[in-house]
Formats: sequence, structure tokens, C-alpha cells
Amino acid sequence: MFRNRMPRYEILSEQSMAVLDSGWRRLVSEIGIEFMSDRALDLFREAGQQIEGNNVKFDPDWVLAQVAKAPREFDVQARNPANSVHIGGDSMVFSGVYGPPFVREGEVRRDASMEDFRNFTKLAQSFTALDSAGGVICEPNDAPLDSRHLDMTYALATLTDKMFMGNVVSGTNARDVIAMTEIIFGGRAAIEATPATISLINCNSPLRWDDRMLDAQFEYSAANQPVVITPFLLMGAMSPVSIPATLAQQMAEALTGIALSQLIRPGCPVIFGSFLSNIDMQSGSPQFGTPESATGLLCTGQIARHFGLPVRSGGGLTSSQVPDAQAAYEGLMTMLPTFLAGINWVMHTAGWLDGGLVSSYEKFVIDVQILEVLQKEFTPIEFTEESLAFGAHLEVGHGGHFLGAEHTMERFRTCFYRPFLSSSDNYDRWMRQGAKDAAARAGDVYRKKLADYVQPPMDEAVRAELEEFVDRRRKELGD
Amino acid sequence: MFRNRMPRYEILSEQSMAVLDSGWRRLVSEIGIEFMSDRALDLFREAGQQIEGNNVKFDPDWVLAQVAKAPREFDVQARNPANSVHIGGDSMVFSGVYGPPFVREGEVRRDASMEDFRNFTKLAQSFTALDSAGGVICEPNDAPLDSRHLDMTYALATLTDKMFMGNVVSGTNARDVIAMTEIIFGGRAAIEATPATISLINCNSPLRWDDRMLDAQFEYSAANQPVVITPFLLMGAMSPVSIPATLAQQMAEALTGIALSQLIRPGCPVIFGSFLSNIDMQSGSPQFGTPESATGLLCTGQIARHFGLPVRSGGGLTSSQVPDAQAAYEGLMTMLPTFLAGINWVMHTAGWLDGGLVSSYEKFVIDVQILEVLQKEFTPIEFTEESLAFGAHLEVGHGGHFLGAEHTMERFRTCFYRPFLSSSDNYDRWMRQGAKDAAARAGDVYRKKLADYVQPPMDEAVRAELEEFVDRRRKELGD
Repeated sequence: MFRNRMPRYEILSEQSMAVLDSGWRRLVSEIGIEFMSDRALDLFREAGQQIEGNNVKFDPDWVLAQVAKAPREFDVQARNPANSVHIGGDSMVFSGVYGPPFVREGEVRRDASMEDFRNFTKLAQSFTALDSAGGVICEPNDAPLDSRHLDMTYALATLTDKMFMGNVVSGTNARDVIAMTEIIFGGRAAIEATPATISLINCNSPLRWDDRMLDAQFEYSAANQPVVITPFLLMGAMSPVSIPATLAQQMAEALTGIALSQLIRPGCPVIFGSFLSNIDMQSGSPQFGTPESATGLLCTGQIARHFGLPVRSGGGLTSSQVPDAQAAYEGLMTMLPTFLAGINWVMHTAGWLDGGLVSSYEKFVIDVQILEVLQKEFTPIEFTEESLAFGAHLEVGHGGHFLGAEHTMERFRTCFYRPFLSSSDNYDRWMRQGAKDAAARAGDVYRKKLADYVQPPMDEAVRAELEEFVDRRRKELGD
Repeated sequence: MFRNRMPRYEILSEQSMAVLDSGWRRLVSEIGIEFMSDRALDLFREAGQQIEGNNVKFDPDWVLAQVAKAPREFDVQARNPANSVHIGGDSMVFSGVYGPPFVREGEVRRDASMEDFRNFTKLAQSFTALDSAGGVICEPNDAPLDSRHLDMTYALATLTDKMFMGNVVSGTNARDVIAMTEIIFGGRAAIEATPATISLINCNSPLRWDDRMLDAQFEYSAANQPVVITPFLLMGAMSPVSIPATLAQQMAEALTGIALSQLIRPGCPVIFGSFLSNIDMQSGSPQFGTPESATGLLCTGQIARHFGLPVRSGGGLTSSQVPDAQAAYEGLMTMLPTFLAGINWVMHTAGWLDGGLVSSYEKFVIDVQILEVLQKEFTPIEFTEESLAFGAHLEVGHGGHFLGAEHTMERFRTCFYRPFLSSSDNYDRWMRQGAKDAAARAGDVYRKKLADYVQPPMDEAVRAELEEFVDRRRKELGD
């Protein structure tokens, strides 16, 4: 797990933050937030908030009092303790793309399958820079709909020994995931003591939380499993065409969702979520890697710290249809601010293509390459007398070179980060090696990774119990 | 010209800066810097520095006293006053790639020609985000060697009305460029009052300044034309495999070069230059867009401010052989820190490919796209009560959309940056439009830009005088 010990890049003045604070307070108190769940409305009513139909008008100070109950930092355990992670503070935890119904492999774009799901999960296991495959690394369209969450959770839990995300399609699915997690980690008490999943709860922005997501949130929060309370904001569609307005809306939605989690179980872990970009105002298409989204991201990190909450944002987002130059610069246009903002939980780190509709094998590899460079770049170096290497200068003198200097010989294996994908071959050598661009080389990398993949060991009794659970539940669900 | 009013991202502590300060002081005083120029040695001797052969051992405080004579900020005039620039402070001035002997156009890589030079110069004129074509936007191999600088300067001066760089191959070439600049801007007094060129003086690192570059520096500094005093540092070859050591060396080389300029003409404008990356320690190839180079860049901005000097660094650098994903992420891996560091004079902004050996038409367009996004991203937004768009929320309510809201309607044309190259078309539309990746679309863009190019007007008498000068000098040079 990476710790970002570099400075945060903060662009909001105190005055700007005060404007945003006044904004979310006015939204939650004057317009209110809709919760399409009677259980949620009952909790808010009991807590003295003003209910009108499904709409809740909040006392902002009461909201902040609930938010203050959430932990600033917490651990999430993985099956392999070496892969357990810490959420909050200076930690940054990276997971794969989440949600695409399609995959791209070379020139082929097609429906994602369970086989693809397993492949991407194996790739996530294979790259140490990634902390998790995530959850819906692609949508396995050939698996039966009602029991698909069982297959996905089983794959995540057995093909990786990293932490994995929980299914949020329904409360029932959430209960199944929790039950499987209990089997793996030794019972309810064990996962309540140290959570073992993170789940993504999206807002139906603007200003509405829907019933299915809330049902899942009730299950996960009750089991002390962290939820990422995420306003889903494409400016121009789900929020106004103004970054400040969108940030205030994001605060209103996230903070009220977090307040609910603290009513379900005071002190349960939450993450302040952000998914914020904009649409193309001529076509209506979502755009990613935009300057507006980067600005929103930088502000979001600062806002979450303002409330003392861990924060989710970022990822290798792009609108590009193929793993080309656009895919790379749009992805990095989001990932570099992700590091500058010190985002704690990063979804969509690897594999995102085509506005999130496609999980791309090649883009997955390109994104991990970018991630490794950034992890190196955001590792502080030491400025000491010894680091000045005065002796090397004495040895080399004027107009010489340092290739054979003693200082170099002692350090050449580890002094610089060495990329696994980027090529600095000279032109002739690059031509001799097939003149492959980065996407073609990325194809070679993922095929080799899959060929070399070794499944991490698992206690056979646990595996048998998991399989029994999956079989039983699949029958009960009628698949 | 862009002004970067966002915060600087500074990663050097006071203590780290003190270590670097001790480092360059020790280098210049104990090892010394070689100057392969009797004129330079004479000036340093007269000023009381210690000369041993070509080596000069400096009193660091004397160096700083010279550096303090250089202006913190200055203007450089362009033929079209609207394109004049300011160097220093929060201004960022962007010029094209500099130096490649080859060009790439689609699948073809070949020797660069004068026709290519003119084409790239026209492209630089066509994109408003660029402030200058630069100087050697590619090396026109088919133009006669001795008089090539005349053709290049004539092209830069007539095909653009932006500022241009001076030739530094020799003192003779520098005098010719200055003479042409005098013709264009109305005489020596006019260009001494407000400089009209910037020239790149590279160090033969480590710790040596060569005679040809110094000859050019003598001419430009005497004419009050700014020089970019640039250590050329590929860590592992020209400097130790240590970022602090390399930064201290960069300070030693740059500050002594700047001290020379202040002996030539006290108060003449200079730019603290940096070209800093590393080699691949296995192959010896230069690498670009590396984490080490980004760290060096961020430190360099802070170091130049520490000395009160304008700073040059950055650019769309990449080792990639083609305008692919690697070219984009490596380029942005340098360009985003360029903005974070508030670099004032940015060379290699557009067109750099293949370790700087190739000027790429497609990469030029991709780089300008990246530049436009960054210029937008680094423009602060206002956080005001009005920006919260509360009325839009009242209009749209819960679960609606903002597409048709009055707030949106009033702003949709200008609310978001609209890219000219990036595609957010949905997959079907993208397929119908030819399934072109970013590089292919970049090809369409530059061909259209060249087809639409209109030469900026120039006074016919000035043009005639320029041509007469070029013809005369070409004959004198024997071409």
C-alpha cells in the first residue's frame, strides 16, 4: 500500500471554503435531500429532522454532528495480511475499473464475460501496485443475473488475496457478500472488528438517494463495512454548469448520506466519495480528463480533509474509445491530481476506457505503468550531505561522464525507476523488435501476466464452505 | 500569453534548500567550472576569481552578487505587439520543440527539410496557445549548413508574427540573427530597450562551458538579448545518479553562466535553465517523463525563485518512437509539473518525439491539446455566492437534470473547455466517423491547419531589407 508523504496541493482559500460551506448548508436545509427508503426516513424523523414525503430537510449542524462520529482512518483486511490496507491519512489505496459492460482486447470490442472478469481479477492480483481488483471489474454478462454477485465475489475472493469490494445491486446481494466475507475471515465478529470489504453507494444526483443503493448501505453499515458515499456528478446533467455549485451539491449529498450511515451504526466507517466530471455541452456525452474535473478533484481532497473524512476520487478516466494518446493524457490528467489531492481510495485506477463502458486489457497495463511512475514520483527523496555525491564530482571532473563512476556503480541497479512498458529503445532497435507502440506492447504484457499467473493459496475447508454457500444460494435464487 | 495564478507546488524544505546551497557553493569553489573561452576567463580574472588553465574557482558570494544584477522579470517583443511576452513572475511562455534532425509524419520517419521547418513554423503560428515557434523547430538538413541560420531566422520572422529564438551555433550566427532582428524592430536601440529574441546556451555538463556556445552568449548578452543558461543533465551520464547532486550541479553550472552574462553586460536578462532527466542504467538511453525528472523539475522552479530568476524547464518530452499512449503520458508527466512549478519559459512544448530526435506533426497537435487543457486547468475559478447557482437547484429539484435549466442555457457555450482533438463521441458515432485514434485525428488537424494557414502581414520595405541581408550574407558565407 502506498503512502503519499508529499505535500497536498490545495487551491481552495478559506474564503472559498466558507462559500462552499454556506452552499451545502443552504441546499440541505432549504431544498433538502430525497431518500427513497422508509427505513432511512424513519431514522431521520426519529433524529428530529424535517420530513416532507421522501424529502428530508436537515439541520446542517446536526449533519456535522453525525459526520463527526465517523472514523478519520480505518483498516480493511485482506485475505493475505500483507495486502491489508489502511484508509485515510496519507495512505492511497488503488483498485481496478468498476462497472463496464464491454471489454476491449486489441481490435475487438465485445460484451464482457465471466472469463474476462476472471482475467482482469488475475491481472489485478499480478500487479503489486494495485491493492484490489475492486468489485465489478467488468460486468460478466454471460453469468445468470440473480446469482452473478456470488460468482463475482467468489472470483475476487479466490483469484486474489487482496481486499475486494461488496456488491450493491440490492440488500440481498449485500447480505450474501457479507456472509461470504464472514466465511473467509472467521465470522461476523472478525469482520466487524476489522472490515473486509468496501462498497460503493452512488447518489442518484441531484439530491436523491435511491432505495436499492440505500438497502445495500443499510446492510454494509450495520455490519461495520465501509461504504463510499458518492455523489455521481456530470456537470451540466446531474449538477449545474459551475464547479462551486457542483462541489456544494457534492457536499450536501455526501454528508447527508454519511449522516445516514451514522444513524444505522454510529462510528461505522465511511468514505467521502466523489465522481465528478462534465458533459460535452454540444453532444451531451460525458467527458473525462477535463480541466474542470481536475479542478473539482483537487478541491474534493481538501473538502474531505475539512470534514476529517477519508476521500475517494480519481482514476484513469478517459472518453477515448481506444488505448491511444488521448486515453493516456486524459487518464493522467485525472491520476496526477489524484496524487496531488492525496485521495485515499482510488477506484478505476486501471482498465477504464470509452467513458467507463469498456474494460480494456491494454489500458489496464498502461494505467498500471502510469500508477507505478506516480508512486515513485510521490515518494520524497532525502537531501543529505551524502546525496550531493561530491566524491563522484572529484572522480569525474570537467566534461567527463558518470557512467563508470564508483558512485554510479554502487547504485545503478536501483537509482532510477525502470518502467516495464515504456520504451526508450533507439529507433533501430525498436524497429527490429517489431515497431510496437505502447498499446501493442501492453498486449504482450497482459498475455504474459495471465500465462504466468499463479493462484494464491486458500485453506481448502474455507474454499469448500464458500463453494457450498455459492451453490446453495444460487439454487435459492433460482439460477 | 498565459499567466499561472494557481499556487506553486513546492516540495523542497528550507533544510533541503540549505543542503543544495552548500552543494553548489562547494562545487564552484573547490572543483570549479571550466570556461573554454579566453574572453570569459579574462573577465573572471579581472573580477578577482581564481583561474587555473580553463578552470575557474569561484567565490560563491561573488557569484550571487553577479546573479543579483539580472532582472527578475522582463519583456520580449514580438513583431505583432499582441504576441509580445513577459518572462518571469507568474507568466508562462510556450515555444515549440527545438533541435530534432528528423521528422515523423504518419508512418514515415525521415530527415527534416526546410519545407518541414516552414510547416512547423506555420503550425506554431496557427495555435494561439503557443507563444513562439521557438528556434530550431526541426533541423533543415537540405539547407546549406553555413547559411542555414539565415533561412531559419527568415522563416521564423516572416511566417509568424510571434517572438523567435536566436541561433547559437557560433558568434557569427548570433551576430547575423541580431542584425536581422534590428532590421525587423527598428535598429539596435529598439532591441536593446526591449529584447526581441531568446537564445539557448547549453552547458557541456559536467562543469564545462564550451567556446561556441559562449561566443554566442557574448553576442546576445552584449545586445541585451536574454539567454537561457541551461545545464544539460541526463543523470547517470552528465551528472551523478542522485537528484540532490544533480540539482546542486545544475545550480553551480547555471549560476556561473549567469555570472558571466552579468560581466558581459550588467543587468542583461537571463533565464535560469534546466534540462534534467535520466538515462536508462541498463541501455544508456535517455529517458523522459520519468518520476526523477518530474521531481527535478518541481525542485528547479523553487530553486530559481530562491535566486529571484526566471526559469526555463519542462516540455512535452518523451522517449516514445510514435505518438502513442506512452508519448502522451510521458509528455504530460513533464508538462503538468511544468505548470505546478510555474515555469516561465517552456521549450519543447509541442512536437517532441523519440527522445528529441524527431519533430512529429501528430505529436505537435496532441501537445497543443494537452497545453490548452492545462492552461484552462491552471486558471483559478471564482467561488462566489452567485457561483453556487442556488436558483438552478430550485428550478431542477430532486432527481432531475440541468440540461435545460436557465442557468445552463445562459452559460452552455462557454462553461466548459471544449477540446479540439479529444473525442467523446459514443462508440457508434466514432466508428461511423472512421474509428480514428487520437494520432490519426491529429493528422487531420495539422493538414487542415496548414491548408488554412494565412501568412501574417509584414511591411514590404522591412521584408525587402531582410531578404537583401539574407542574400548578401549567404554570398559572404560562400553558400
